[in-house]
Amino acid sequence: MRRIAIDAMGGDFGPLPIVDGTIHALKKRKEKFNAILVGREAAFAHRIPRRFAKYIDIIECDDVFGMEESATGVLKRKQSTIYKAIDLVRDGQADAVVSAGHSGATMSLATLRMGRVDGVLRPAIATMMPTQVGSRSLVLDVGANTDCKAEHLFQFAIMGEAYFRDILKEENPRVGLLANGEEESKGNELTKETFKLLKALPSFKGNVEGSDIFNGSTDVIVCDGFTGNILLKTSEGVASSISLLIKKNIKRSPTALTGALLMRRVFKLLKKQMDYAEYGGAPLLGIDGCAIICHGKSNPKAIKNAIYQAISFVESDINGDIAKNIAQYSAKN
Amino acid sequence: MRRIAIDAMGGDFGPLPIVDGTIHALKKRKEKFNAILVGREAAFAHRIPRRFAKYIDIIECDDVFGMEESATGVLKRKQSTIYKAIDLVRDGQADAVVSAGHSGATMSLATLRMGRVDGVLRPAIATMMPTQVGSRSLVLDVGANTDCKAEHLFQFAIMGEAYFRDILKEENPRVGLLANGEEESKGNELTKETFKLLKALPSFKGNVEGSDIFNGSTDVIVCDGFTGNILLKTSEGVASSISLLIKKNIKRSPTALTGALLMRRVFKLLKKQMDYAEYGGAPLLGIDGCAIICHGKSNPKAIKNAIYQAISFVESDINGDIAKNIAQYSAKN
Repeated sequence: MRRIAIDAMGGDFGPLPIVDGTIHALKKRKEKFNAILVGREAAFAHRIPRRFAKYIDIIECDDVFGMEESATGVLKRKQSTIYKAIDLVRDGQADAVVSAGHSGATMSLATLRMGRVDGVLRPAIATMMPTQVGSRSLVLDVGANTDCKAEHLFQFAIMGEAYFRDILKEENPRVGLLANGEEESKGNELTKETFKLLKALPSFKGNVEGSDIFNGSTDVIVCDGFTGNILLKTSEGVASSISLLIKKNIKRSPTALTGALLMRRVFKLLKKQMDYAEYGGAPLLGIDGCAIICHGKSNPKAIKNAIYQAISFVESDINGDIAKNIAQYSAKN
Repeated sequence: MRRIAIDAMGGDFGPLPIVDGTIHALKKRKEKFNAILVGREAAFAHRIPRRFAKYIDIIECDDVFGMEESATGVLKRKQSTIYKAIDLVRDGQADAVVSAGHSGATMSLATLRMGRVDGVLRPAIATMMPTQVGSRSLVLDVGANTDCKAEHLFQFAIMGEAYFRDILKEENPRVGLLANGEEESKGNELTKETFKLLKALPSFKGNVEGSDIFNGSTDVIVCDGFTGNILLKTSEGVASSISLLIKKNIKRSPTALTGALLMRRVFKLLKKQMDYAEYGGAPLLGIDGCAIICHGKSNPKAIKNAIYQAISFVESDINGDIAKNIAQYSAKN
């Protein structure tokens, strides 16, 4: 039985969505797993139905590393829920960790305590984005590394490709490099340098632009963590602005309101199609273990999917695949 | 009477939307201007009503610099419409140029032929973005400079501020630096360095994230041209994906279709609120003159607004303002 360590306290809304998500995950899956909840038992024990109690271990801990704290501070907080959850994986008592807490802290700790996959220079956070054709694309890095070198981006491509192949079961993912134009001559110094390295990768399809992320033309999109963060936040900003403007405009007219009611299912479907919760969390790729980083605002569905994502991860050989491919290309260069 | 040189041939859809936009601009404005259309007269002369002919000069020219050509190639194309239109400004025969042609070529030529405002290191392309509260924000650079130094970004802030003050008549624009987090500690090497310089600017409000562009919290958003391009294209991609998904989902259900009909005015309003054509074009700031760069797909409304934008620009003292402010801060540093 797979053992998943879960920081029960880290999210923006406290332990309940996280614990509820864990229960959902147990309910909806035949093949059970062992959930190790790290947190204050008194705060959530009442949410655990008796029939699932046997699948759940609780590690009592009430030090929560705050969202507003500086990530580096977590290294001294050995008694915090996130530190303990990650060390469960490090010490072999869990197979993976799921956290909706401070993402910078989770990333730093996971990298330092679990170590990196052989040959990996920099772990990266990979995020799923919905596309207009119903597929999904994986963008990495989206925040772990603000300043990158070409060899880092090259490795991100290898890691993203491995995720698509091993977890999403897509045999031939197409890799694109995020740039300000499709032509090889476009890009900044970093991407032009990266372009040269990526030519060695058969899956590399060239530069892709910001709009290509959503048209389904590329599976893995590689960028530095600064640019990836801008991309992610901009997408969220546009989507929520459109939704807000529609709502505002509807309120002004009874006709439009009726129309909106008739369109309810369309909006619901759209919401589902754009919903990050459908994907779970963002895997931290390149660490010698498995850490799924969830949105601080994760609802139970997102947590449930993140747990399933963690199980798929540990049941695959993605880390072996990454190590092998990095070794192969290092030998070539 | 203001004289506006217009590259009549440069856009993706040939001369008609451009010439029609010019006519619209003349029609809707009491205070007339002199439009100098550079292009093949036979291709569009039939679109010019006799009563406006006295405001229009045509400079015959049939060499069009193609969208697919490399920007640097334009320097040798002295007989092209864009080269001639820009040289009209350089030679004092026009006050401003409006172009929907190759934006890289327009930018290079305008910079080289008109020169830069005193003290400006790098001209920048500034784009208006709609916000969810009905205001607008100005993002620069969005493509002219893929690799920047902190002092370039600092100057972008000064130029953007001047545009808001002098053209948009907003006395106290708020300046933000695009980064991957609001805290001063967030950012990449470039933005951290820039943050230090920007502290000298009273209008500087700190870092802003990708989502802040649309919430109306900031007026001028500064970034390097690579990041700005990603931001712009990502926004376009998200907006068009949402629109496509809504359309697709509507088609599947007669109820939803009825709803959409009732919501028609809402969607129309939304389209207007998000429409780049409302803003005209993107001014190239920091050149010793005025060049408005329009989207290749500009419709007549966008061209009309770009012409009005050019007139406001030449009637202001924005370039004097930019020179003065840059000198002031150079003296301080």
